[in-house]
Amino acid sequence: MEKIFVIKIGGNIIDNAESLDVFLQQFFEIKEPKILIHGGGKLATDLAANLNINQQLIEGRRITDAATLEVVTMVYAGAINKNIVAKLQANECNALGLCGADANLISASKRPVKEIDYGFVGDIKDNGINTSFLQLLFQNNITPVIAPITHNNDGQLLNTNADSIANEIAKALSTKFKVHLIYCFNKKGILKNVKDENSVIETISNETAADLKLEGSIHEGMIPKIDNALQAIAAGVYKVSLGHALELSEIVKGNAGTDIQ
Amino acid sequence: MEKIFVIKIGGNIIDNAESLDVFLQQFFEIKEPKILIHGGGKLATDLAANLNINQQLIEGRRITDAATLEVVTMVYAGAINKNIVAKLQANECNALGLCGADANLISASKRPVKEIDYGFVGDIKDNGINTSFLQLLFQNNITPVIAPITHNNDGQLLNTNADSIANEIAKALSTKFKVHLIYCFNKKGILKNVKDENSVIETISNETAADLKLEGSIHEGMIPKIDNALQAIAAGVYKVSLGHALELSEIVKGNAGTDIQ
Repeated sequence: MEKIFVIKIGGNIIDNAESLDVFLQQFFEIKEPKILIHGGGKLATDLAANLNINQQLIEGRRITDAATLEVVTMVYAGAINKNIVAKLQANECNALGLCGADANLISASKRPVKEIDYGFVGDIKDNGINTSFLQLLFQNNITPVIAPITHNNDGQLLNTNADSIANEIAKALSTKFKVHLIYCFNKKGILKNVKDENSVIETISNETAADLKLEGSIHEGMIPKIDNALQAIAAGVYKVSLGHALELSEIVKGNAGTDIQ
Repeated sequence: MEKIFVIKIGGNIIDNAESLDVFLQQFFEIKEPKILIHGGGKLATDLAANLNINQQLIEGRRITDAATLEVVTMVYAGAINKNIVAKLQANECNALGLCGADANLISASKRPVKEIDYGFVGDIKDNGINTSFLQLLFQNNITPVIAPITHNNDGQLLNTNADSIANEIAKALSTKFKVHLIYCFNKKGILKNVKDENSVIETISNETAADLKLEGSIHEGMIPKIDNALQAIAAGVYKVSLGHALELSEIVKGNAGTDIQ
């Protein structure tokens, strides 16, 4: 099977123009077909504040009322997405910016209201990824750059977690490609000792993950990331890596970050 | 040659959710390959005002400083573009939202500073339209929805007039298709008598245009529109129509609007 890369970046890189340029330089040097999925960042929070739209976060998830949905659509699918596309085009990477509504790329359902009403937040439907459209882009040497906005196929845009999008796209493509899914964040990998940036754990498997959890040596915030990664592997993804965006080239080569497989 | 439609809408339709729905209903009923190009509207002006970004217009063109460019990128390529795409997808029209940077669709040059510094405004380059990408979309039954933001191939987004984009796309595609270019605006067509909505002139040619100008019977604002249309015809476009967005179906059939050919 042909190898492809599905790479997710978050606010820590998006918010810093200089770091973003370094990352994009490493991204465009990847020769294989690749997909970039970006999150939001400070710009959405700042814009909402400037517009006096009150932002509520519950367990790290933004509550998306109608005004907030408009803000994130503008910032994620507009400002951030198109700036990344223009920068990649300047490097002769034929990037195409997309949200989940475009070409029906990602179908989602509005999250049901239980204890919490998340508002216009979408959870990706089963078989909700349009893999044939992504294949069409690959066949034409076009690199998708995806903003974390989806739709419900009934005219409603929805705010969707970028990590989940990366995960679902990687899983959906894994029947057709050897998918290397890379989550970039602000650490060099999963650290054995949170205070030591150089204590990166090179490899985690199902067995070692259980041991690490028992030992209590993994930083708590990392556990859902590891669980998601293991779940992606179980669903057919070839390899999942977690590492620093500025070390992308080395992560691609297997020389940096934590590999989960 | 296969017939295609290139249709441009402006703020008067975009700003009114109900009218926009009626228009999109008529748009998606067109069976032939079609492209929608949308302008801006009140939302960009409102957002800039809410953010205390001072807006300057010279001869109807917005002066685009860096803050304004960010606003129009968010509003045009984000909010407006993605909402239209989601609405078309709900009608099973496989829409794909694009700005000119996406897949290098439209290359432009920053307008040189002479008496006026227009800021980040782009004029479309010669051969600046990526027609093979548009053909790829048509071949896959994908309908492009284009926001009036372009790029300079060097990482800079630029604000570009939507009428000019429609014109250049229509001309560029006219070597491969029989292109019907339709400009929707807030009148039923070019009126013989500005005060009488029913005095639509059915057809204008080079000769009759000269006569109408001499007579002084055409409203001044219409003269550049007619000149642009005649220039498009001279460059190979099959037909240019001007009419009301809510009469799109009838314009398509040749039963409404002013045809320039």
